[in-house]
Amino acid sequence: MLRLESGGGSAASDGKAPRTARGERTLRKILDAARVEFGDKGFADSSIVGITSRAKVALGTFYTYFDSKEDVFRALVRDMSDRVREHVAPSLSGASDGIEAESCALESFLRFVEQQKQVYRIIDEAEFVDPQGFHDHYQTTATRIAARLDAAAARGEVQPAADPLESEVRAWAVMGMNVFLGLRYGVWSHEEPEKVAAAAARLLRGGLAKR
Amino acid sequence: MLRLESGGGSAASDGKAPRTARGERTLRKILDAARVEFGDKGFADSSIVGITSRAKVALGTFYTYFDSKEDVFRALVRDMSDRVREHVAPSLSGASDGIEAESCALESFLRFVEQQKQVYRIIDEAEFVDPQGFHDHYQTTATRIAARLDAAAARGEVQPAADPLESEVRAWAVMGMNVFLGLRYGVWSHEEPEKVAAAAARLLRGGLAKR
Repeated sequence: MLRLESGGGSAASDGKAPRTARGERTLRKILDAARVEFGDKGFADSSIVGITSRAKVALGTFYTYFDSKEDVFRALVRDMSDRVREHVAPSLSGASDGIEAESCALESFLRFVEQQKQVYRIIDEAEFVDPQGFHDHYQTTATRIAARLDAAAARGEVQPAADPLESEVRAWAVMGMNVFLGLRYGVWSHEEPEKVAAAAARLLRGGLAKR
Repeated sequence: MLRLESGGGSAASDGKAPRTARGERTLRKILDAARVEFGDKGFADSSIVGITSRAKVALGTFYTYFDSKEDVFRALVRDMSDRVREHVAPSLSGASDGIEAESCALESFLRFVEQQKQVYRIIDEAEFVDPQGFHDHYQTTATRIAARLDAAAARGEVQPAADPLESEVRAWAVMGMNVFLGLRYGVWSHEEPEKVAAAAARLLRGGLAKR
């Protein structure tokens, strides 16, 4: 089933959640079209008509689900954030330890970016168009990474954090690493995700100290 | 002396470089005002008049140095990039090894962000307003970090990179870590730079593997 809910609400504007499977498919089409429209043209140059013509739906159908261009952008930020998480999650289960899990997550993220390069432009533009969505995306991502690392530390696979600050710093460091490696090797130019992830894994596992 | 040159050219538009020390001071005033204007209001809502009134210079004076709002924004991106580098550079010299140097660089960067929170909004908005400046900022920063780490490896302080890709991956990972820790602990909320840098240094030195 398509995932159109996040944080307890529909992607649609308040009171406009689809009530049928067909409605959910239409909402999905609008969000996919919005991803291409905003990703290609940026927020300022995008239009609702541009989205509905890409989605091949009537203008009135747009207003069945959203109140404005800002609303569909906010929904898209939440949707992209959810889709990154859902794309990466299955990759974690096969990892032999918490550090390999982070490497699998990075490799999976790089593959996602290859297919959906627009994710960068959309999340990055959210800093200006939807600051709350921008904040929530990174805060929830960092919280998830910190929980994974803390659980791996509890299993004895990862050095325990000395204090809550170190736990948070490690999560933000890993997230920043992933975001910039995705920019460099997924958006700007291509490099095999497994090679990038392997090099990052060596850094994550053993650090920079001479062995 | 104020640094208003970068990559072999003045911050001013082509053919508009200041010829006197007084002219350089005026150019500096305009760039400082542009930092506050663009940093507070964003590119779209900023205006040349907003910049000249903050700088307390006549509108005609602006056009002595710049051709347009886009031009002063591009100059500002390059200026902020140069200022980050110049702020961080002195912190490197006291470090006992290449890994401590990266920790000093992060601590110094966090202190810079505390004083100049606008640096994030300006560099981030450059992705949309001045993509070349955005690219150049991160590419030159990563190249600088890679050169530092490779030199430290040559001195036997850091594990040598297995290949050119690993050298580049490490540099982008360190840069991404710094950018996101600056966002979290310099822009969103405050934490003592030395505590954040110390936690990051433990990660950089020894990685996540249980010791």
